[in-house]
Amino acid sequence: MKILVLGGDGYLGWPTCMHLSAQGHEVMSVDNYLRRNLSREENSDPLFEVPNLHRRAELWKAKSGKEIQIRVGDLCDWDFLAETVKGFKPDALIHYAEQPSAPYSMKDRHTATLTFQNNMMATFNVIQAVHEFVPDCHIVKLGTMGEYGTPNIDIEEGWLDVEHNGRTQKFLFPRAAGSLYHTTKVLDTDLIWFYVRTWGLRCTDLMQGPVYGMETYENTGDESLYPFFNYDELWGTVINRFMVQAVAGYPLTVYGKGGQTRGYLNIKDTLQCLRLSLENPADKGELRIFNQFVETFSVNELADKVKASGERLGLKVEIKSLPNPRKEMEEHYYNPAHTGLLELGLKPHYLTDDAVDEMMKIIIRYKDRIQKDCIFRDVKWNK
Amino acid sequence: MKILVLGGDGYLGWPTCMHLSAQGHEVMSVDNYLRRNLSREENSDPLFEVPNLHRRAELWKAKSGKEIQIRVGDLCDWDFLAETVKGFKPDALIHYAEQPSAPYSMKDRHTATLTFQNNMMATFNVIQAVHEFVPDCHIVKLGTMGEYGTPNIDIEEGWLDVEHNGRTQKFLFPRAAGSLYHTTKVLDTDLIWFYVRTWGLRCTDLMQGPVYGMETYENTGDESLYPFFNYDELWGTVINRFMVQAVAGYPLTVYGKGGQTRGYLNIKDTLQCLRLSLENPADKGELRIFNQFVETFSVNELADKVKASGERLGLKVEIKSLPNPRKEMEEHYYNPAHTGLLELGLKPHYLTDDAVDEMMKIIIRYKDRIQKDCIFRDVKWNK
Repeated sequence: MKILVLGGDGYLGWPTCMHLSAQGHEVMSVDNYLRRNLSREENSDPLFEVPNLHRRAELWKAKSGKEIQIRVGDLCDWDFLAETVKGFKPDALIHYAEQPSAPYSMKDRHTATLTFQNNMMATFNVIQAVHEFVPDCHIVKLGTMGEYGTPNIDIEEGWLDVEHNGRTQKFLFPRAAGSLYHTTKVLDTDLIWFYVRTWGLRCTDLMQGPVYGMETYENTGDESLYPFFNYDELWGTVINRFMVQAVAGYPLTVYGKGGQTRGYLNIKDTLQCLRLSLENPADKGELRIFNQFVETFSVNELADKVKASGERLGLKVEIKSLPNPRKEMEEHYYNPAHTGLLELGLKPHYLTDDAVDEMMKIIIRYKDRIQKDCIFRDVKWNK
Repeated sequence: MKILVLGGDGYLGWPTCMHLSAQGHEVMSVDNYLRRNLSREENSDPLFEVPNLHRRAELWKAKSGKEIQIRVGDLCDWDFLAETVKGFKPDALIHYAEQPSAPYSMKDRHTATLTFQNNMMATFNVIQAVHEFVPDCHIVKLGTMGEYGTPNIDIEEGWLDVEHNGRTQKFLFPRAAGSLYHTTKVLDTDLIWFYVRTWGLRCTDLMQGPVYGMETYENTGDESLYPFFNYDELWGTVINRFMVQAVAGYPLTVYGKGGQTRGYLNIKDTLQCLRLSLENPADKGELRIFNQFVETFSVNELADKVKASGERLGLKVEIKSLPNPRKEMEEHYYNPAHTGLLELGLKPHYLTDDAVDEMMKIIIRYKDRIQKDCIFRDVKWNK
């Protein structure tokens, strides 16, 4: 299969490229280095050195004998995207290419505008390009579990059958996200759903929870092929960040009561989910939605797990509650369905003690690279 | 009250400016003439000559003795909007400023991109400007009944209480619109709802049905103050367009079976609804939603009403069914609530025979200005 990976430089993008390449697919990785550039602007260096895409492709070729094509450019630039899609003619397209940080999107008007413009126009252009040049192409869009927020009812897998005054209708499950970044993903879903209905596009929308980990099927033990791994409050997802904080002797910072519960998954499971979605494509005119996570934890539970691992490895780990800078419920009902990907064959990795210890050991090897003073960011949702 | 009317040159914008000015409010009308310029590009002239905003303000001053301030510029230009809001410091802001044509938004990629970029960035910037400079300002946003689409259940007024597996949650009423233009309004609502929750903005979202008419409380008999009145398939709303087609001897063009049912209102009722919303503002942190229409009709019923009026006035009127260029249900359930504005005091004008005849007589006076060959546009939702 010819697969175009948009956002192919990112935390998930590059591991996805390698995984699909290893499976024998013809992969083109596209990125404009926005995330690299923004994190550099914000003085946030990743824990592991990350070669540029061309260099990564060379390293991958040396290791696997397989080629990943690289194209650097901006999806908001129609000409660039059109040439890419027309030239490569993908059978499937993975759309990761968005500014992915919730705190960055809430930092100030400048960062909000950049997030909104970039994420909306990238998605809009991707839809137009697929319709114009490869209408049968399977669009696999990375959404987020954060689109749903924390409603007081069970979260179904994308859709909700509503009975009202004796009549029934199936709707997109109503969404109410907790940051501008997450809201751009809500708008993405609305927009894609409109064009799926109108143009008969073929689309899978993956409502993913926060991902953790650095080792995948393709890079185990080979740190030059590790993904972009951030650990500050802007760019680091919570489990990765807590593990680095524990290693650095920086207290694990729990916002408010710490009862915020979300669905998590190992980066290896992200790769499985993507592969399974591609191998079992959505139909023409179908918007297929999966909730992509394997288990739920509260922030307090995560902090306890990381603390326990740290102590097993001889570290002294403190947990500290901070006033919540976000606007979110700190105690809430949370019961999201997530059977679709299991039915396709997902074999979950769980956040076992061994799994945490293994990741912590890798981070300990890189302890000297951790910049402690870059972790705290003080981004408030409402100043 | 100091009221900023964004999109103050449009079909509803200018009448709103006059109406609020007549009520003694201090009004500033802001527009970048986008709609004028686009309709000129598309060879669509309005039925009545429309002086520019500065000239209209002079005519209004001569008639009423009251001043409407004019500012011409683009809300997608942050500096322009910021200066406007900082300088005027409105107590309320009416946001009409969007590309308003569904067929234009579906015409081609260029018109879709313009619609998407313009509508999304205008709304985004308006939210940011209010938050930054006038956080207590009441935002009155023009939405559309088209956001809801035609679900198989009763459409409530903005919100829906869902019971699911024994638990309950109130959600924004799920939306699924029928064009890109209408979808931009869905995204507007999502975006505003996020910032209302997060920043405590004060907002009224008016889900308006298609509007008809040209005479208002302020311009009766004074055609130099009539609104922008289009009658082609791109820019003309259905009742206005049918009336012009009847006068021009052009068959009334019903798409498909003609059972498409929507909620309609007279332009005078739009003005009442806006005034009532402003006089009874939403609370801080409230997104208040009204369904803004007074009666529902199918397209067949509208065609019959216009035909009957034409015949009363001595015209020969033909009704012709065309293959539906849109993607929509031609027969469907439609039962939307609309009590909120009635409770605030709305006194509806209905589409009576007299009302249709009166409008038709005005159009007959302008018969020579009708450009018959500009009516049909052949915009297909899915080419």
